[in-house]
Amino acid sequence: MTDKKGLLIVVSGPSGVGKGTVLGKVFEKRDDMYYSVSATTREMREGEKDGVNYHFLSEEEFLKIKAEDGFLESACYCDNYYGTLKEEVFKRIDKGINVVLEIEVQGAMQIRRKHPEGVFIYILPPSYKALRERLLGRGTDDLDKIEKRLEAAKWELTQIDKYNYLVVNDIVEEAADELNSIIEAEHLRTPRVYDAIQEMLANDEI
Amino acid sequence: MTDKKGLLIVVSGPSGVGKGTVLGKVFEKRDDMYYSVSATTREMREGEKDGVNYHFLSEEEFLKIKAEDGFLESACYCDNYYGTLKEEVFKRIDKGINVVLEIEVQGAMQIRRKHPEGVFIYILPPSYKALRERLLGRGTDDLDKIEKRLEAAKWELTQIDKYNYLVVNDIVEEAADELNSIIEAEHLRTPRVYDAIQEMLANDEI
Repeated sequence: MTDKKGLLIVVSGPSGVGKGTVLGKVFEKRDDMYYSVSATTREMREGEKDGVNYHFLSEEEFLKIKAEDGFLESACYCDNYYGTLKEEVFKRIDKGINVVLEIEVQGAMQIRRKHPEGVFIYILPPSYKALRERLLGRGTDDLDKIEKRLEAAKWELTQIDKYNYLVVNDIVEEAADELNSIIEAEHLRTPRVYDAIQEMLANDEI
Repeated sequence: MTDKKGLLIVVSGPSGVGKGTVLGKVFEKRDDMYYSVSATTREMREGEKDGVNYHFLSEEEFLKIKAEDGFLESACYCDNYYGTLKEEVFKRIDKGINVVLEIEVQGAMQIRRKHPEGVFIYILPPSYKALRERLLGRGTDDLDKIEKRLEAAKWELTQIDKYNYLVVNDIVEEAADELNSIIEAEHLRTPRVYDAIQEMLANDEI
């Protein structure tokens, strides 16, 4: 017996911590998950697909949706807008799908103010050293950029007390199991199941 | 990465719901659990063992411990005292053991007032009908007593919003998995792991 609605799951963590890998494992385990696709006004890059990597919008479209309060959160980076479309999220939650947003700290806190019922999870590296090694190992960033990412990680770690759960990604499989347990347990929390249980017992004569 | 302390887990549910069976399955799965033994002033029955079924105390001993604030909760039924010794619980929690108290609603609420960090779980039957059948099937109570137990169950169900989690025991194995997920997830909640994570990152140069 669990609730009939999906969870709004917000996952943050420093660049290089392996959020995508851990979430990938969770998605392999469960068939009730959806990975939310963000909207952006930045140019589509080669190999990207609209609706898969991002929902690519013109600035005009983006600002119109924003004016109509159509975003769960939005931000502007490097002259481009990014945001999470409400439409992307709530129609799925109503159907019982757990919707995962992979999002940075400020965006997560924007969402938390309006949706405290969301499940806010921060994924940590086992150490800064491990994080640096992962960023170096990826080979996508130069050293200067890696130092910037580590500085950002350091700041983010002062914000982790605002999340509901802290998961350390040391062994991917273990971190994925932990995320899975969080999802299972959250579906059993009283405010989520109370109505369904009252309904279950209502047609039932003592 | 989880916290180093055990959880204070309080489990309630109507008589006949199968709390013992579900908890038994959870104990098979995990080696970090302890089932708290209550103290009582009632007479030891045949086959019972001191320290196993109960800690059997004289009324004088019980009241002395109570006066010294040595109980987490206590109550008097049918002229006998029952209670949970603090000593039984906290030394184990400090060693990382999850301590389970199987206890009725009033006792659970006594504990919750002083220990809101506890994990309060209510186990429900899939229906009143199922509960009645289980009570009849046990064959330990006469019909009059069964009706009283069902009335008590009905009252208890008005109190379940005070628990953190609601678990329906329809299929024992599923209910046990759900309890297990709750335990896993609770160990990852930010207030429990925050200090351990700060410690983990402290010796680590960025």
